[in-house]
Amino acid sequence: MQIDGVMARQMVLTALEGVPFIQPGDNLVEIILEALEQSGLELMDGDLLVLAQKIVSKSEDRFINLKSVHPSGEAVELAGQTGKDARLIEIVLQESERVLRVRPGVIIVKHRLGFVCANAGVDHSNVSQDEQGDRVLLLPENPDGSAARIRAQILAQTGVPIGILIIDSFGRAWRNGTVGTAIGLSGLTGLLDLRGKPDLYGEKLKITRVGLADELAAAASVLMGEADEARPIVHIRGIPYLPLDGSLAELLRPESEDLFL
Amino acid sequence: MQIDGVMARQMVLTALEGVPFIQPGDNLVEIILEALEQSGLELMDGDLLVLAQKIVSKSEDRFINLKSVHPSGEAVELAGQTGKDARLIEIVLQESERVLRVRPGVIIVKHRLGFVCANAGVDHSNVSQDEQGDRVLLLPENPDGSAARIRAQILAQTGVPIGILIIDSFGRAWRNGTVGTAIGLSGLTGLLDLRGKPDLYGEKLKITRVGLADELAAAASVLMGEADEARPIVHIRGIPYLPLDGSLAELLRPESEDLFL
Repeated sequence: MQIDGVMARQMVLTALEGVPFIQPGDNLVEIILEALEQSGLELMDGDLLVLAQKIVSKSEDRFINLKSVHPSGEAVELAGQTGKDARLIEIVLQESERVLRVRPGVIIVKHRLGFVCANAGVDHSNVSQDEQGDRVLLLPENPDGSAARIRAQILAQTGVPIGILIIDSFGRAWRNGTVGTAIGLSGLTGLLDLRGKPDLYGEKLKITRVGLADELAAAASVLMGEADEARPIVHIRGIPYLPLDGSLAELLRPESEDLFL
Repeated sequence: MQIDGVMARQMVLTALEGVPFIQPGDNLVEIILEALEQSGLELMDGDLLVLAQKIVSKSEDRFINLKSVHPSGEAVELAGQTGKDARLIEIVLQESERVLRVRPGVIIVKHRLGFVCANAGVDHSNVSQDEQGDRVLLLPENPDGSAARIRAQILAQTGVPIGILIIDSFGRAWRNGTVGTAIGLSGLTGLLDLRGKPDLYGEKLKITRVGLADELAAAASVLMGEADEARPIVHIRGIPYLPLDGSLAELLRPESEDLFL
C-alpha cells in the first residue's frame, strides 16, 4: 500500500520550511498553511501537525512584562531560595496549582493545567527583549482549546480533518534530559487503550495504555531542536492508528495512582 | 538537499517487513539484514535501527522457566501483596537493585541496570508457553553491550556505521500510558548537550540537555505497536544530529539530583 509516497508501516516527519518569527496577533493558521505550501505538502486525512508551544503562546500574546509584576511575600521567599527574579517566581506561582520542589536555580511545580514541569513552563530564553524591560512567555491559557481552534480553522479552510498537537520540552523523573511532551491536543488520541487485546499467543495483554500523544511529541521534538525556533512546526504522516479525538486529561496520572514517584 | 529520498529536516521511520518470530540462538544480525533487504532499504551512514527489547532478549535466550525457580521468603511475601506468582517475583527481585513500590498487581523497581520500571522488565505476555510450564523473558543481560555487538557485526558485514537502539515500553511518573524508552544504545548520542549554546537572541539557553535516545525510542514505538510482535525493528533515517557514541548511563538521573520525584 502506498499513500502519497508513504508506505504502510512508514511514518514521515517533516519540519516545515518558511515559518517566520511569530508575533502577538499573528494568524497562526495562515502561517501554517503557507508553510505547508512552501514545504510542498498537501494535507491529507489523518495527518498530524505538531506545534511548538512557543509559537502558539506568542500568537496568543501570552507575554508578560516583568515590570508590571508585583511579587508576593511567598514569591520573594522562593526567589531567595532559587536565586531567580521574584517577579518571575510570582508568575510561576500564579500559573501553578502547587510548588513541588525548590532548589537553587530550579522550581518544579504542578501546573494549573495538571502536568508537572519546571518553572510552570514560563520561558525567559528565546523571548526577544524589548526596551521596556524583561518579558517572559507563559504557556497557552488552554492548550487543548488552542489545538481545537486551530484544527477547526484548518478543517474549514482546507476541508481536511487533521490532528493538532501542542508540545513543550519537559524534564522527567528518574531520567536525564528533556523530552518533547504533549500539553494540548485535538483530533488525536492522547492515550491508546490496548487493554484486553489478545497478544500473539492469545493471552490478554496485561498492560497496555500507550501514551501515544507523548510518543508523537517526542518524535517531533527530534526535528524541532532547541536552540533554533525556526523549526517549530512538524508535519507527521503515517500514524498507524485511527485519529480519534483526545485531550490532555487522558495523559495526566492522578497522584493517588502514581507508583512511579 | 536530498539524501536518497529523505529531505533535510525530514525523518523517515520504517517498520521492517519480514521479521520472523525470534528463537533463542537466532542470528539477529542476519535477520536484521534480511529484513532490511525485504523492505527495500539499503543502510546509510547515520541511519539508526531501533530494536524491541524482546527480540534481543529472545535471541540471547533470556528465558527462565518458572518451574526452576525457588522463591525466597521476601518473594513469597511480595507475591501476597501483589497477587503475583512468587516465582515471578523472585526473578524480579534478582533483576532489581531495590523495590520502590508494591500494590496489588504492580511492583515497581529500580532495575540492576539503573532505570525504574514495572516488574523489572520481566515479561510474561507475548512469550510462548511450552508444555514444560510457564516461561518468562528477562531484559538483556547488558543492553548497551548487545547494541554494541550488533552494531559492530553490521559494520563488519556491510561497511556502514549505523546506530543501534534497544527499547522497551515503560510507565512513568505523573503521566498515564507507557512510552518507548531507551534501555541500551551504541553509535547514538543518548543525551544531547545543548547547554551554553546561544538561543535566537544571543542569550545562553538555560536548559538544555535533550533525552535524544528516549525521544527516538518513543518515535519508533509508535510504529512497533504493542499487541503485535511482527514489527519489532524500526529503521530511522534523517536524525539531524551527528551520531556520536553514547550509553544508557547518560540517561539515568541520580536520585540525589532528581527534583521530579
